[in-house]
This record gives sequence, C-alpha cells and structure tokens, in this order.
Amino acid sequence: MIILHGSPLSGNTHKIRMALAFLGLPWDERLADAAARQSDAFAALTPMRQIPLFADGDFTLRDSQAILALLAARHRPGDWDGDTPEERGEIALWLSHAANEIANGPAALRLARKFGLPIAEDHAATVTARILPVVEAHLAGRDWLVGDRLTIADLAASPYLALMGDAGIDLADWPAIRDWIRRIAALPDFPAMPGWPAEGAI
Amino acid sequence: MIILHGSPLSGNTHKIRMALAFLGLPWDERLADAAARQSDAFAALTPMRQIPLFADGDFTLRDSQAILALLAARHRPGDWDGDTPEERGEIALWLSHAANEIANGPAALRLARKFGLPIAEDHAATVTARILPVVEAHLAGRDWLVGDRLTIADLAASPYLALMGDAGIDLADWPAIRDWIRRIAALPDFPAMPGWPAEGAI
Repeated sequence: MIILHGSPLSGNTHKIRMALAFLGLPWDERLADAAARQSDAFAALTPMRQIPLFADGDFTLRDSQAILALLAARHRPGDWDGDTPEERGEIALWLSHAANEIANGPAALRLARKFGLPIAEDHAATVTARILPVVEAHLAGRDWLVGDRLTIADLAASPYLALMGDAGIDLADWPAIRDWIRRIAALPDFPAMPGWPAEGAI
Repeated sequence: MIILHGSPLSGNTHKIRMALAFLGLPWDERLADAAARQSDAFAALTPMRQIPLFADGDFTLRDSQAILALLAARHRPGDWDGDTPEERGEIALWLSHAANEIANGPAALRLARKFGLPIAEDHAATVTARILPVVEAHLAGRDWLVGDRLTIADLAASPYLALMGDAGIDLADWPAIRDWIRRIAALPDFPAMPGWPAEGAI
C-alpha cells in the first residue's frame, strides 16, 4: 500500500493526491503537520523534512515533482511523462517552474499571507509577477501545458495557481490559467481541496 | 546544428556544454550576455530571458534541467534519464534540487558575492546551509547521485557546487561533494570552465 505523508492544506501534497486519484490507486494518507515534521523519526525519512513524502514498502521518495515522475513512469509511461524527447524536455521545463518559480512565487506568497509564515513577501510577490504572465501566455489557446492531454506538467504546476486566492490574487485576472484550473477540476475523480475554487466560483 | 545561447561564466549554460561534449555532439555557442538578454529579439525566443536557451531548427527550449531531459531522451534514453521508475523519480528529485535549492542557494550566493548582483544574500546563505549537508550525506559512499553511473542528475546539480569557491565556500569542507566534482571533471571530454577547480586544486 502506498503511504503518502502530507497535509490537507499542502498544495504539494495535492499534486500527488490528484495523480493517485486519477490513476485509481489506493493510498493511505498520514498527517505530517508542523509538529510531526520536527520529529527525528520524520527527519530520518526525509532530510529536509519536506512534504509530501511517498513510501511504498521500503522505497521512499521526497519532492512532489519527483513523486509525479515516479508515478508517471510506473503507470503512464510515454503519456503522462511525454511521448517524444521534445515533450519530455517541455514537461521537465514545467517541473522546474513548479519547483522554483511557482514554489517561491505564488506558493510562498500563500504561506506568508494565509498562514503568516515568516517569508520575504516582497520577493515572493516579485517572483509571482514574473511567472504568472508566462503561464498565462503559454496557456492562451491551448488546453494543457504540454501536448494535447494531461501530463505531470499540469499536475505539478496547477495547485498553487489554483490556490492563488489564498495569496490575495484574483484568478479572474488570469483567464487562461483560470480555464485550465477549471479543466483539471472537471476531470473524473478529481479530489477536492480546501481553497481550490469550485466550478461555479470561477 | 544545435545552437546554445549562453555565457562563459554561467553554470546553467555549463550543464548543457557538459552534456553536449559528453555526447560528442557539435554545437554553436552564441553569447547571450546581460545586454543581449535585454533585447526584444531574445525575449521573443524565451519569455523569462533565461540562459541557456537551446535551439535546434525550429525547436527551442529554455531551462537547463529541461534541456538536459531533452538531450537524455534523444541520446541516452533509459541511461542518463533513468532505467526504472524509481530511478526516474530520483533523477527528477535532483532536477528539482538543481532548479530550486541549488539555484537559490549556492548559485545565487555566487551571483551576489562574485558578480555583485542585488540578491538577498542572507536568504541565499540560508538555502545553501540547508542543501549542502543533504548533498554531502547523499554522496558519502556513492560515486553518482543516482545509480552507479553519470546521469542528468549529476549534470544538473554539479556546476554551482563546483563553483562554490566563487561564493566564498571552501569545497574542502565538503569532501564527498569535492570528490564527486573531481570525478565529473575527470570524465573524457569534460569541458573546462572558469572557476571550476582544476584537478590539483581540490
């Protein structure tokens, strides 16, 4: 049985919840809240105390992008992770944006503004202002980030853009992103998440 | 002919130089210095004005991790990008660390300290202090980041760790990282780079 250490309000955890739900795989979710993450037991599993942490028997893997790559290679090779070298490169580009600009932009801004974490809000706002127009322009006239179907690029990049309302950013100002968020949420078996706009709301 | 837009002192560009040299592929390198990157022509090629930018005929791709994934899928599939789903996941983990913690840690610290760029040095030092022990512990007792051979994980993660001297960090304090940097530099066709420690120096 797959064990997913995560938390209900973690967008990074939600990337993996979406993947597992879309794949129809059962999983056992273990709450790793701030207190649990400070424990030595958790540090032994993952040195940076990050969530999500994926465990399947003896195999463990941290980092949401990495877990998505694992699940794609196991269950949707050549589909979720790209059919051609060019698609593989483009998917890796969006995994980089998810790991860097989206994590340090909209996700960090949400941590500061919704949860009051001590994060340099100015820097997060600058990074956000840099990445949002790039995503918006890329999605104008296309349904998915890479190719003509859902890939792990969409799973990696979407949660913290869907949750921008928590960071004080109005999704209505970014219509191509909003439509794409709506498209993902309309997929069969999409798991609900607090803060992810409901269909009628966007 | 592959065209690589980059600059001699860019560690991100060097990731791609290493890959192309190890693959034995010819390429034409075009200098994209700070002035060139401000041009409208460059922005039309890559919206965030990042280097390196890879071009091959009509196909262009930004982000050094993405270009490595493309080259691996084209020329070393199942080898440089992982032979099993677990290896693919672990390689993706190191691409995330390269895109986030290494870029915002040691690479940012180098930009601040060597080149005087207006970067929050405290933040870069904090991220550096967080990631270095993780890399050092991971490399203790192993030759390569993933599996028993060079992969794009090593190509993505190594340049800004090799260049830490530019950021005022002594590689001698990180012996497993130092040995791994030396191992990469000893590979046939390794391209030299200013600031990368020569064999005798480390």
